[in-house]
This record gives sequence, structure tokens and C-alpha cells, in this order.
Amino acid sequence: MPDAELRYTAKALETFIGQAFEAVGVPSNDATIVAKIMADIDLGGGSGHGIFRLPQYIQRIKAGGINVTPNIQIERETDAMAMVNGDNALGHLVMRLATDTAIAKAKKQGIAWVGVHHSNHAGAASVYARMALKHDMIGIYSAVGSANHLPPWGGIEMLLSTNPIAFAIPTDQEPPIVLDMATTVAAYGKVKTAAQRGETMPEGWMMDFEGKPLTDPNKSNEGFLLPIGGYKGYGLALILGLLAGTLNGAAMGKDVVDFNADDTTETNTGQFIIAISVDAFGDAKAFKKQVDTVARQMKASPTLPGVDQVHLPGEQSDAKRKDYIESGIPVHPELLQVLHKLADDLGIKPLNWFQSGNDARNLELP
Amino acid sequence: MPDAELRYTAKALETFIGQAFEAVGVPSNDATIVAKIMADIDLGGGSGHGIFRLPQYIQRIKAGGINVTPNIQIERETDAMAMVNGDNALGHLVMRLATDTAIAKAKKQGIAWVGVHHSNHAGAASVYARMALKHDMIGIYSAVGSANHLPPWGGIEMLLSTNPIAFAIPTDQEPPIVLDMATTVAAYGKVKTAAQRGETMPEGWMMDFEGKPLTDPNKSNEGFLLPIGGYKGYGLALILGLLAGTLNGAAMGKDVVDFNADDTTETNTGQFIIAISVDAFGDAKAFKKQVDTVARQMKASPTLPGVDQVHLPGEQSDAKRKDYIESGIPVHPELLQVLHKLADDLGIKPLNWFQSGNDARNLELP
Repeated sequence: MPDAELRYTAKALETFIGQAFEAVGVPSNDATIVAKIMADIDLGGGSGHGIFRLPQYIQRIKAGGINVTPNIQIERETDAMAMVNGDNALGHLVMRLATDTAIAKAKKQGIAWVGVHHSNHAGAASVYARMALKHDMIGIYSAVGSANHLPPWGGIEMLLSTNPIAFAIPTDQEPPIVLDMATTVAAYGKVKTAAQRGETMPEGWMMDFEGKPLTDPNKSNEGFLLPIGGYKGYGLALILGLLAGTLNGAAMGKDVVDFNADDTTETNTGQFIIAISVDAFGDAKAFKKQVDTVARQMKASPTLPGVDQVHLPGEQSDAKRKDYIESGIPVHPELLQVLHKLADDLGIKPLNWFQSGNDARNLELP
Repeated sequence: MPDAELRYTAKALETFIGQAFEAVGVPSNDATIVAKIMADIDLGGGSGHGIFRLPQYIQRIKAGGINVTPNIQIERETDAMAMVNGDNALGHLVMRLATDTAIAKAKKQGIAWVGVHHSNHAGAASVYARMALKHDMIGIYSAVGSANHLPPWGGIEMLLSTNPIAFAIPTDQEPPIVLDMATTVAAYGKVKTAAQRGETMPEGWMMDFEGKPLTDPNKSNEGFLLPIGGYKGYGLALILGLLAGTLNGAAMGKDVVDFNADDTTETNTGQFIIAISVDAFGDAKAFKKQVDTVARQMKASPTLPGVDQVHLPGEQSDAKRKDYIESGIPVHPELLQVLHKLADDLGIKPLNWFQSGNDARNLELP
């Protein structure tokens, strides 16, 4: 980690983010919900999807591309599913309601699937899947990504997004098993982070239109992301897009709006969350102990030459979370500059100010 | 295709398979259900999971490793989920009941998830997902594989199976979108098929314990399968194993019985099927037309140098199905010899005999 990276408490990030949203007209309660989710993403090390995205969200709100006074509502439902219309709200608000709905229904029916449309980018996939954990539930989340960076396998027209999927599985003593993956080798957020940090991408992340490796993140518009496992990753991206997008009457394929290039057109983003109550299938405590057992089996595996240790999905994020709770969340200097400028533009206090334990929401805004 | 491959009607395969099962004590109705599913797998080109597996199933039944007079029953249920105890039956029978149950529940609740335990190998994953299609439903199936061939990423102890997942999505005019994939680069069935055919495996399918590529399928026990997308495929295999295995109280990790090496120990195989009724989310006809639209967008993509055409998942299987219905299912000469020997051992007519339109079930067995 570069020693220039300053660390901030989750509370400081959360308060700063909340202030920023309030400054562009997001009601206080909504701003708090989104800020808590975004800070939680940073706390888990999801540095491409937390406060890093704030300037883009603010820019989109200022341009009128997001509805800051939405009427988010359940349009269709049974005891085990629902379809939520997000009314073009911030995706975090839509997914918070969708996830709460899925958990409530799964408590009664053992399983629930909630799809959403007219939503927007909602941050890291795992944050919604993880919301199920404290209810002794398994969470599964997927979404149509907010820009197409992936062609069908063998093609060069970017008709698919990196359509991520996240799973969260509760454990007893071990860190929860949390897999959060794009169906591409790298998420586009990683490309953006690499560009901001002036880093080179490894071969295999992207390819140009002639089929040659592309490693300069600043030339990302001269090629496309590569799917995991070749046609399998393409197939997964397509299927998840049909489930999270088409099934919900949300954008998919050519209808996807590139929210990096267009701040005003409604994205009609589709997402879904599944909640599975472990108690419906058996005893939750016994299940969690058994997941611990399986996790320990994996970690006890002898390793290939040169490999120190087998890891479980979510283990490294969990370690970051513990570190960041203790010592603060590192914020890259480049990002810090962007956030300082954002604070200036919005007329709010800079991140540093909140770090000192101040909370502008206890004061009158200037 | 080698010109030595003879082709057989699905009906001939089905009748032969049914006879073989009846010869080892499977009740006629059950034998018919399994035979229909296995022939349907071959019809879709799933050559590693259809009649190819028959000798192994028969061997296992003869050894007492499968219960031929099972009491398959629903142990737990809500309106949207069920847990089925397969009573160590042939997996096809367990999954047939589980899939019918999921479809019936999804008709009322829009979505249902049915898990099974005490099941066995059930053939190709896509066959169960596809059963949802004619009900205007989406099917999703996964299973704990029947032998561990995959270590956790960075490890060398084979603690995971290739844990496949299949999705089937209905269309209007286009072939249904059907993705059926192992979480490894190659399914172990492909390794077995390559070995039987005397073929070499491409690099990337398997690795030896020193981390070197392994390409001789006859040396498959000197290494392990590789996951798609590195740690992502490992993560997917683990998660699917926890969902299909651990959640159902079925085998996972070290508990998995290698059914290639052990014909007698109960495998306690776990599987799950999800059925999603499109009508719960919107209008099924409109959805299917929109899936067509997305499929056609993919196919219309310009291609990379050297690539003729973009394909959709399930498109090539669908083309095989049409060809095989018209012209018969090719059976590799090596497999044919094995099946002839099996017929001899069981005292039933050989496959050729059923091809001529004969149906031994209309006759008294010799």
C-alpha cells in the first residue's frame, strides 16, 4: 500500500457521503441509507464501488439523471417473490427495499426472489447478499451492469455488461463465505481504478478489436473486457442479464445506457436479490457449523509450489474489514483530491473535517 | 465425426436403457422415467451424461449402491420450497420429482426452490432446467458432482467437484437459451470421453500436482481439473456445493463419495432446482419475444478475425437435437462395444435390435 494513502473512519466516509447527497437534494433519510451502504462497501475493501463512485452519482443527480424524490414501490408480488419499481432512484435505495422485502418473505416461505427495474447502479454486489447473513439466510444478488463492456464470445460488439453475481453464506466461527464476482476476468471498476492510479493492467483483462491483449487502462475504449472461462463467462453474463434485466422489464443488451458516458438518460437498471432461510431446510446452527467445517477443509489443503495458503471467498475482504474498523479505510491520494474538489463544488466540509469526529449534520449547513 | 459412428433413434436408446434397468430390478415405471431422461440427454448432444453412463449405473445397482425400490418423499416444504429425500434412488427419479414439485409450486408462488439429498448422479444438468421451459418458466439446476476433481484455488487436495450449473430460459422463435456448464474448464465426463476415444486433452483442462499441464486423459489421476476464471471458478464450485450439498444436508467436501471408484457406499448426492414463472414477473409472451430480440442482437455482432459466427448458449445443442431427431443419435464405436457387452451380461437384446423398431417391452423377455 502506498504510504501516501490516508485512512478515514467509516463514520467519516458515511457522514461525508450523506452530506454530499443532501447537498444535491437527496432527502436526509435517503442520504443516510445510501451513505451507510457505500461506507460499508469501502469497509469491505470494495474500493471500486464505494466512495470512489460518489462524484459520478452526484454528477448524475445534478444532471437530472436520477430521481431524488422517488416513489419506490412493489408492483407485483406473491408470498415468495416481488417486483419493485425503483422510480429511477439511487440503486442503493431500491435494493435496500428489495432486500428487506426478500428477507421478510423468506422468513415465512423459506425462499424469496425479488426483482427490480427502473433502478440505478447500486454499488458492490456483495453488500446486498451480505444483508441476509444476520438473519441466518443465504443471499444471492445479481444485476445488469451500468455499461456494456463485453461482447458475446467470438464477437466484438459490446452488448453485455460485466453482470456481477454475489453470494453470501453464513458461518458459525469462520468469516462468512462471500463471493462477489464480475463475469469478466476484471470488473470495469478495476479498470477505472487502475486508470486513476496510473497502473498497467495485466494481460487477460481486456482485448482489442483485433484480438490482441490491451494493457493500458487509459485505452479502455479501444477494446473490451474478457469473460471468465471464455464462452462460459459470456454465457453467465448473458443469463444473469436476462434474469436481472429482461425478466424484470429492465434494460439488457442494446438498451443498456452507458452511465459513464450519459448522465441524463434513465438507465432502467435491473437487479435481483434472493434470500434463502437456512432454517427452512434444516437447523441453521448445524448448517453454519458444517460450513465452518468445509471452510476449514479448504484451508487445510496442501498448496501448489509457491502458494502460501488457500483462501476462502470473502476471507480477504473480512480481514480488510477488521483492519479498516480498527485503523480506518485507506483512501487513495488521487481519489482524495477528487473528493476535496467535490466538497468545494457542493459547499460542504471536506472529508478531513469529518474525520475529526465532527458531524456536519449536527450543525446548520453554511 | 468419424464415419464409423452409427446412429440410433432416441426411441431405441430409450428402450434399450429401460430394458437394462429392468434387468437389474428397477421397476418398469421408474426404468421408463430414467430411460426417457437419459435418451433426452443424448438427443441434446450431452454425450458424456446419457447412455454413456449406463454401464456405470448398472454396475452400481448390481453392487447394491443404489436403492431400486426407493421411497422418495418430500421431507420439508413451504409454498415456495421443498426438501426431498431421495432414499438413495437413481438421481434421475429424485430430480424428476423435485422438478415437478418446483414447477407446481412456482405456478402458484412465481418462484420455487427445491433441494434434494440422498440422491445420486442424475445425468446432464440442463435436462432438469429445460423441464421448466414448456411451462413458460425459467429453470436453474445445480448439483454436487459425484467425485472430487478440483482443489481449492492454490491448493492440490481435491476437495471439490466440478459442481455444474444449468439455466434454461424460454424463447419465442429462437432456440431456448440453455447454459449447462461445469465450474471447471472441462467437465470430468469430457475427460472420460477423451480417454475412451484415445484423444489428447488440450492444455488448461487439467494440471498436475507440481502445477504443470496434464494432457493425457489416461493419467487423469495424476492431477486435477482447473476451475474457470481461476479463483472465481473455485468460488463458484464452492458456493454451488454449499447450496446443493451442505444446505440440503448432503455430501460436500471430504464427504463426497467418488462414484467412479466406489460402487457401494451411499453417495448422499445433493442437488437443487429453481423454477421461476415468467408470468409472475410480467407477460410471458412479451418476455419470450424480448429474449429473442436479445439473442438476435448477440448473433448480429461483428466477429473477431477468424470467427465465423457468434453462438448463443444452447444453440449448438438445439441444432444437434434437430439433427438427431431427424437422423438419429451417433454412438461412438467404443461405447457401442461396451453396450453390446452390457446387453450380453444382462441377457437383453443389443441396441441394434431396438433400432429396427422392435420394443422388447411388448414381448416377453427371454
